[in-house]
Amino acid sequence: MKNNNLEYPTDIIRAGILGVSGYTGREVFAILLKHPGVRITYVAANNTEGLMGEIYPEFLNRTTLVCQKLDLKEVTKKCDVVFLALPHTESMSVAPKLLKAGLKVIDLSADYRLKSTKTYETWYGRKHADSKNIAKAIYGMPELFRQKIKTANFIANPGCYPTAAVLGLAPLVSTRKDIQSIVVDAKSGVSGAGRKASVDKLFSEINENFKAYKVLSHQHSPEIEQYLSLLAGRSTSISFVAHLLPITRGILNTMYVHLAEGITLNQVHSLYKKFYKIEPFVRLHPIGGQPEVKSVANTNFCDIGLAVSADKKTVVVTSAIDNLVKGAAGQAVQNMNIMYGFNEVEGLL
Amino acid sequence: MKNNNLEYPTDIIRAGILGVSGYTGREVFAILLKHPGVRITYVAANNTEGLMGEIYPEFLNRTTLVCQKLDLKEVTKKCDVVFLALPHTESMSVAPKLLKAGLKVIDLSADYRLKSTKTYETWYGRKHADSKNIAKAIYGMPELFRQKIKTANFIANPGCYPTAAVLGLAPLVSTRKDIQSIVVDAKSGVSGAGRKASVDKLFSEINENFKAYKVLSHQHSPEIEQYLSLLAGRSTSISFVAHLLPITRGILNTMYVHLAEGITLNQVHSLYKKFYKIEPFVRLHPIGGQPEVKSVANTNFCDIGLAVSADKKTVVVTSAIDNLVKGAAGQAVQNMNIMYGFNEVEGLL
Amino acid sequence: MKNNNLEYPTDIIRAGILGVSGYTGREVFAILLKHPGVRITYVAANNTEGLMGEIYPEFLNRTTLVCQKLDLKEVTKKCDVVFLALPHTESMSVAPKLLKAGLKVIDLSADYRLKSTKTYETWYGRKHADSKNIAKAIYGMPELFRQKIKTANFIANPGCYPTAAVLGLAPLVSTRKDIQSIVVDAKSGVSGAGRKASVDKLFSEINENFKAYKVLSHQHSPEIEQYLSLLAGRSTSISFVAHLLPITRGILNTMYVHLAEGITLNQVHSLYKKFYKIEPFVRLHPIGGQPEVKSVANTNFCDIGLAVSADKKTVVVTSAIDNLVKGAAGQAVQNMNIMYGFNEVEGLL
Amino acid sequence: MKNNNLEYPTDIIRAGILGVSGYTGREVFAILLKHPGVRITYVAANNTEGLMGEIYPEFLNRTTLVCQKLDLKEVTKKCDVVFLALPHTESMSVAPKLLKAGLKVIDLSADYRLKSTKTYETWYGRKHADSKNIAKAIYGMPELFRQKIKTANFIANPGCYPTAAVLGLAPLVSTRKDIQSIVVDAKSGVSGAGRKASVDKLFSEINENFKAYKVLSHQHSPEIEQYLSLLAGRSTSISFVAHLLPITRGILNTMYVHLAEGITLNQVHSLYKKFYKIEPFVRLHPIGGQPEVKSVANTNFCDIGLAVSADKKTVVVTSAIDNLVKGAAGQAVQNMNIMYGFNEVEGLL
Repeated sequence: MKNNNLEYPTDIIRAGILGVSGYTGREVFAILLKHPGVRITYVAANNTEGLMGEIYPEFLNRTTLVCQKLDLKEVTKKCDVVFLALPHTESMSVAPKLLKAGLKVIDLSADYRLKSTKTYETWYGRKHADSKNIAKAIYGMPELFRQKIKTANFIANPGCYPTAAVLGLAPLVSTRKDIQSIVVDAKSGVSGAGRKASVDKLFSEINENFKAYKVLSHQHSPEIEQYLSLLAGRSTSISFVAHLLPITRGILNTMYVHLAEGITLNQVHSLYKKFYKIEPFVRLHPIGGQPEVKSVANTNFCDIGLAVSADKKTVVVTSAIDNLVKGAAGQAVQNMNIMYGFNEVEGLL
Repeated sequence: MKNNNLEYPTDIIRAGILGVSGYTGREVFAILLKHPGVRITYVAANNTEGLMGEIYPEFLNRTTLVCQKLDLKEVTKKCDVVFLALPHTESMSVAPKLLKAGLKVIDLSADYRLKSTKTYETWYGRKHADSKNIAKAIYGMPELFRQKIKTANFIANPGCYPTAAVLGLAPLVSTRKDIQSIVVDAKSGVSGAGRKASVDKLFSEINENFKAYKVLSHQHSPEIEQYLSLLAGRSTSISFVAHLLPITRGILNTMYVHLAEGITLNQVHSLYKKFYKIEPFVRLHPIGGQPEVKSVANTNFCDIGLAVSADKKTVVVTSAIDNLVKGAAGQAVQNMNIMYGFNEVEGLL
Repeated sequence: MKNNNLEYPTDIIRAGILGVSGYTGREVFAILLKHPGVRITYVAANNTEGLMGEIYPEFLNRTTLVCQKLDLKEVTKKCDVVFLALPHTESMSVAPKLLKAGLKVIDLSADYRLKSTKTYETWYGRKHADSKNIAKAIYGMPELFRQKIKTANFIANPGCYPTAAVLGLAPLVSTRKDIQSIVVDAKSGVSGAGRKASVDKLFSEINENFKAYKVLSHQHSPEIEQYLSLLAGRSTSISFVAHLLPITRGILNTMYVHLAEGITLNQVHSLYKKFYKIEPFVRLHPIGGQPEVKSVANTNFCDIGLAVSADKKTVVVTSAIDNLVKGAAGQAVQNMNIMYGFNEVEGLL
Repeated sequence: MKNNNLEYPTDIIRAGILGVSGYTGREVFAILLKHPGVRITYVAANNTEGLMGEIYPEFLNRTTLVCQKLDLKEVTKKCDVVFLALPHTESMSVAPKLLKAGLKVIDLSADYRLKSTKTYETWYGRKHADSKNIAKAIYGMPELFRQKIKTANFIANPGCYPTAAVLGLAPLVSTRKDIQSIVVDAKSGVSGAGRKASVDKLFSEINENFKAYKVLSHQHSPEIEQYLSLLAGRSTSISFVAHLLPITRGILNTMYVHLAEGITLNQVHSLYKKFYKIEPFVRLHPIGGQPEVKSVANTNFCDIGLAVSADKKTVVVTSAIDNLVKGAAGQAVQNMNIMYGFNEVEGLL
């Protein structure tokens, strides 16, 4: 496309990954390594340097790339697009410089997802350092914003829980005016909490264990509510509780939507079928089927199941994703595919 | 106490376990083996015969008991009390004979928990074979029915999900008249599904997986609703979804109670504190604390945590138990302790 | 290549999979589904019928193939090559018919791996039903027998433990004449034991557990010894103990080779480096590195690590593979690639 | 016994635990909490302060003990016996002061296990700070040194791998003069690596993974060799490789003993049966049986299994323990029971 570097064919995108030593950055790396239209040209991390194949033995003999300390000049020289797999609050100090240098940026952190800096500061505990770029950031959920993504230079890649929640609720929330309350009971594998060393993520603490955390106070609540409100055309709130599963990858959200007027299972199934008709990565289970984490692990799919109570007033929507793929790196690459005109599923099947 | 067998001191209870080859029966066995007031005198199973120490290497050198095919005459001769760890629908063919022979019976199956045979038949798919004893069966949840248990000869030991749900909801349901809806999002370890061989319980199917099952159609729903209705003094229904955790033991229920009028966290915490003041096996977490499965694994505790939404209209109650202990064998022994006048915690700490 | 079916381009291979409901068959299916040179045209299983996407939700919306009961006429009409993912002792009744009909056959069972029918009958407890085809079966380990595989019509695909053991030991065994003894301490994930329902493979039995099984009496011993003896040019025996890991996929073999004369770590590392120089799927760790199961999971790699004792007389070789990929389905496809002149790594990276 | 504190009955031992925030210290705490002859009177940790029931929710409502920063004066005032669950190299700065003050000390670190300070310094990378007390420390393996433990004031509690290895090998090593080589292939759950935060112990790194570590260079090698040499009456070396199991608790050692002259399975089984005849915590499996980690988890048992090769020249001994119980805290309490004249199994069944 638009690179004019002589080393690569001009139709190959040059991609950089910042924060490649975390689980999300590594997943972007693994996906792009197999992507026929992309050459990874730069990888950096804060505290890790060396050959990617030595840092991660899974890449042994598969790449000669070297992970180095971040040097923004190098990034702008070597990359067309940059994936920011940085901790929340770090992205906003890097993104503006890359955007200014004319690069496309896909930010996997939460820094540009919330439209209100006040909400951001309430939930992330820090003043927003780049409020002027918030408006430019397109929320990278292709099923809802594909047209805007096509021409975007800057993507705020959705959070993992919000991806599963918004995809699971969008058909109902955007069509029903009689929603009384929404419960989102969310369960995630541990990789969602990142790769920073801490006692509470040690194997012996997580294994054979299960618990709720940040009960009714998780920072993904306002992100979910922002997009549900947009879809509903009115302020929409949820009761959100996150839980930690003793697995590495995967999210399953169980969502209870109470309706004033009721709906049959056939009706709600038809609604979802129509809503996601053309989507390559949303799979609606047949009536009676239920998604499971294992079927979406290591894939970019979001699987959805439906049930309705006997009195037709409660719809239970279950949605499953791989938090590192559709909930992070896979969706980021899906966005990149759309931005650069690749086949949307390239590198993701 | 009342046995007149010459082999044992007269204050030792002689206990039998039917169905000792399943996870629940084995747990009763393990607990009673350490109980100073009980001698296990009879164990039986349908398809397993032999020395307990050879069937289960954990009991190697710890017992000379032999597991045999069920012989009811032997049971009545050798036992004062019998624990039925049989599959649902099998207990009701055995219990009446044992009761008639004058033995005390603690039934860990679901056969005598539902007061309506019609409801039983709807949910368990089989005509009830012993309807006349249903009324005699005391629901063995000591926190609610301790006085009745003291003089009972026949206990319907609660289900695992119902134990966690009813204990978690009882203080609210029995005092608040403004409950609008209740969601019980329940997650259980795999041992809850029993020890019968089946592909869906194989390690490779469960491991790194998570899914909902019997969505809005689990047979524990009517059991929970029956006791919540009793506590509330009016018909009370719930939205119940069960999930399968990739762990062996443990249940965590996350329950959302929507109130019309609202309550503060301090108020709800005080309510629970008072309600469970004297209970040896219910532990209320301090405000801000959350129960976890690992802290109750291999114990008879039910741990409870509380949270309230910003608008005070939603209370989130989390309750955790070990499904095989407080959710089955431990609670059964707790009931036995009460029936025989032992210290209620004997053998359970 | 040589099919003359009008429905597919003539350079597309038509593949059938028998036994697709087991873990190995499903893995062949998953790999071939992405292989650009292959069309899966037939899948069968003993006790499972229906849409692949319904039997295995991971394939939902990804294929319209229907799993059916085996009909050999259909197989011969629809396939160029057939993968037999059948239980041991079943393959030998099917393979001769397919070979006679002119199909290429890749047998993932153990039926044609042992050259001596007597040894087969001793270890597999059944008379061999097709002894005449044993000699025609080429042992499908490309690193040792690539030339023969190129022209083969019939492949005996290696066992999982033998793949890790033989690849790990081949450089030493084929060059050192001073080997005194070999210990192979092997550990495998549970999927290696198949998908048949049994109590000993239930999650609650395997989870948080670890044990040795078939100690010094595992049926893979003679397979390993047969090929080590061939490499050594003399009868070579091993002490082999298998263990069951509480993971789904992966094998790690720790092998202790006692040498009379000793060797330095640099020498043994150079030996292995040279031996596997051109191999796309054998990765030798740098000195000091050690393979791990996670780095080879879901890949066709065999990773190898080396260490030498202070007295230079003991070499410890560790080798890791995914038992379902390099230890079964991946190696089978690698063999198919070689047989049909595809790039050897096609569909496997 | 000898305390003269008025608060407790004089036959109650007052115990302190230093390092209670680690897995080993917590296990000592959990065991002593149920021990009828012991009152825990002091607990300390480096970086954790507060109510034990808040630090560890498993102890909620079960104790009012407060974990505090170490104050040696307090220790000597409040305790008769002190358990040191401190990191290696920290114990040796604390133990001499406690011994000097007349307390009994049970050290769970490695600081006093090796008789040679040179060996200690080679393997633990630090000069020994208290060489004069090394000779006084009795190696706390009751099966070998019960008489010495009875009168000991200072116990060097054995390492986890050494406990499983030495108990598994002692009968052979102490009787056979024809041992040619010994391989100890050891596998441990992750709790053995302690509770300090580090990336390599994170759930997502360990889960679904398995690997060897410190191959032929683990610091438990010289400890095992020291005691095997003592038993054999001659210098005895082993090939030792440790592996990390994706489980929390448990060790299984698979050990290959090559004999020049051979032995039958019956002979070796009789040898072990006789050797461990009176031992309450060593359980020999019947011929054909094999130990497993789950059967010894949360117990103080060491289970042993035996197999012999067809040529009778190789004996495979498998031994299983819970690394935190028989491999640390349980054995420490067993030693305390012996030192104070309690029933040896008190608090441990």
